[in-house]
Amino acid sequence: MRTYLECIPCFVRQGLDALREVCTDEAEIDRILKQVLSVIAGVDRQQTPPEMSRAIHGLIRHELGNVDPYHEIKQCSTRQALEVMPEVRRRIERSDKPFDTAVRFALAGNILDFALASLYQSDQLDTTLARAETQPLDEAMVTQLQHAVDQAQTILWLADNAGETVFDRLLIEQLTDKRFIYAVKAAPIINDATLSDAQAAGVHEVADIIDNGTDAPGTVLKLCSPGFRDIFQNADLVIAKGQANFETLNEVDREIYFLTQIKCVVMARHYGYRIGDWVVTTTTAIASRMQSNQPEVAHDPG
Amino acid sequence: MRTYLECIPCFVRQGLDALREVCTDEAEIDRILKQVLSVIAGVDRQQTPPEMSRAIHGLIRHELGNVDPYHEIKQCSTRQALEVMPEVRRRIERSDKPFDTAVRFALAGNILDFALASLYQSDQLDTTLARAETQPLDEAMVTQLQHAVDQAQTILWLADNAGETVFDRLLIEQLTDKRFIYAVKAAPIINDATLSDAQAAGVHEVADIIDNGTDAPGTVLKLCSPGFRDIFQNADLVIAKGQANFETLNEVDREIYFLTQIKCVVMARHYGYRIGDWVVTTTTAIASRMQSNQPEVAHDPG
Repeated sequence: MRTYLECIPCFVRQGLDALREVCTDEAEIDRILKQVLSVIAGVDRQQTPPEMSRAIHGLIRHELGNVDPYHEIKQCSTRQALEVMPEVRRRIERSDKPFDTAVRFALAGNILDFALASLYQSDQLDTTLARAETQPLDEAMVTQLQHAVDQAQTILWLADNAGETVFDRLLIEQLTDKRFIYAVKAAPIINDATLSDAQAAGVHEVADIIDNGTDAPGTVLKLCSPGFRDIFQNADLVIAKGQANFETLNEVDREIYFLTQIKCVVMARHYGYRIGDWVVTTTTAIASRMQSNQPEVAHDPG
Repeated sequence: MRTYLECIPCFVRQGLDALREVCTDEAEIDRILKQVLSVIAGVDRQQTPPEMSRAIHGLIRHELGNVDPYHEIKQCSTRQALEVMPEVRRRIERSDKPFDTAVRFALAGNILDFALASLYQSDQLDTTLARAETQPLDEAMVTQLQHAVDQAQTILWLADNAGETVFDRLLIEQLTDKRFIYAVKAAPIINDATLSDAQAAGVHEVADIIDNGTDAPGTVLKLCSPGFRDIFQNADLVIAKGQANFETLNEVDREIYFLTQIKCVVMARHYGYRIGDWVVTTTTAIASRMQSNQPEVAHDPG
């Protein structure tokens, strides 16, 4: 998905959010935010939104002397998720349909998204977990995912955010006869999970953790390491979490399962979803949805 | 009120909204939006937000060949308001406290704000009018305003948006023994009322309409005409509608009554309000509120 004009105000807000996290000097924030505006003004909008985010947050980290603005937020998310983990695991294990329930909690965990930091509410995780088992979901797609998992030996899991990793782990641990490769970012970008975030969630107990060789949000294949791309091409099944993976991979030429909440109006309009929808879909399903629906892509003045 | 960093993403969104209203050429919008980003990057944040808006929307109008992006929106707002006017007038006249009720509808009309165009919902006016008589309001301040009106001969009314003008008129027409001077903008800026918008609302039947000599939102005194400034200084009472007037006048050295809905998080935080509050206040009351509360001005990471 390319960058839409409606993404621009959001990039500015995201940049400001990141600066606010670690900087209290208003003049310094002002100085760096002006550079962010210049970067955005110069951008090629054929890039995906995550590529754009990478440029913006790379600049911010550089200007802040390589401080990671999301370091504490990520640790806090993981702590919050680990606290509820035993209870969530019980709910999965007691469920009549443990796979379905585990998918639902993996989707619930996607609420831990601090790319939208200034819009995040501290009780959001609790309220999201509370409705995980009743949230409308395309059950046929969940069943299709379960069959795909059944038939796969090696499953590549593309992680999204720190903390969400805990809920990913709870799904993965249900599937003990599969080999899971859990791919994280090679370096900090927004609140995306890196190796240490995945380890803090205990993912290493249930999967092999690798990094994808880049600090771009989502999975920008051309920026990933050759080793990662090889695993990506050859895995029996690829499961990708979160919007940024959807945005960067939905037109890629291999079947991928996407698990994400819909958080942004541009993506909702573009793919015919509503904000807040929980989505299980595939590259194939998205392509056929786009072909049959032809939704109005950009601006809907109503 | 100076411009806060949190205003910046909002300016970008406002600029995009304005461009979307009249331009369908994505490349052209992209080109102008990049200029908007450059203008914002170069700004002196000691300016008030309305001064910043003026620079942005001036650029946009210039680049679009002086087309007014809000022309149709303003006409539509006025039509919408005129349709409900007879019913609102009946509600005021049947009220036990017609002044209080008229103030409430004047505040309700402040919802017609297309500076927030992309956030505006078409049924917002109806739902706002429905709760006008029950919306929490500082009744002591309304009583104080009524006393101030009673004692005044000449009242200067600083208008805000087109359409809202219709509700202003319904308050003004209750006060037949006063001389009202109704000040509008000298040229189009966002959806602020100009002479023709005030006339379309019938304000000329109940007040003398003047323009303030400028196309800045709110009332930026240093940009206003000497004639307007003279009237502003000498009026027995000044009533100012809307956030932009609050933002540009609240530190001015004369008593002013402000009637506005609180629509932006920066202003809410700065003055200790909540988004959606309906406010009747004065320069004196704001100063004492700021002195006693000392609310956290800028960013609240919670």
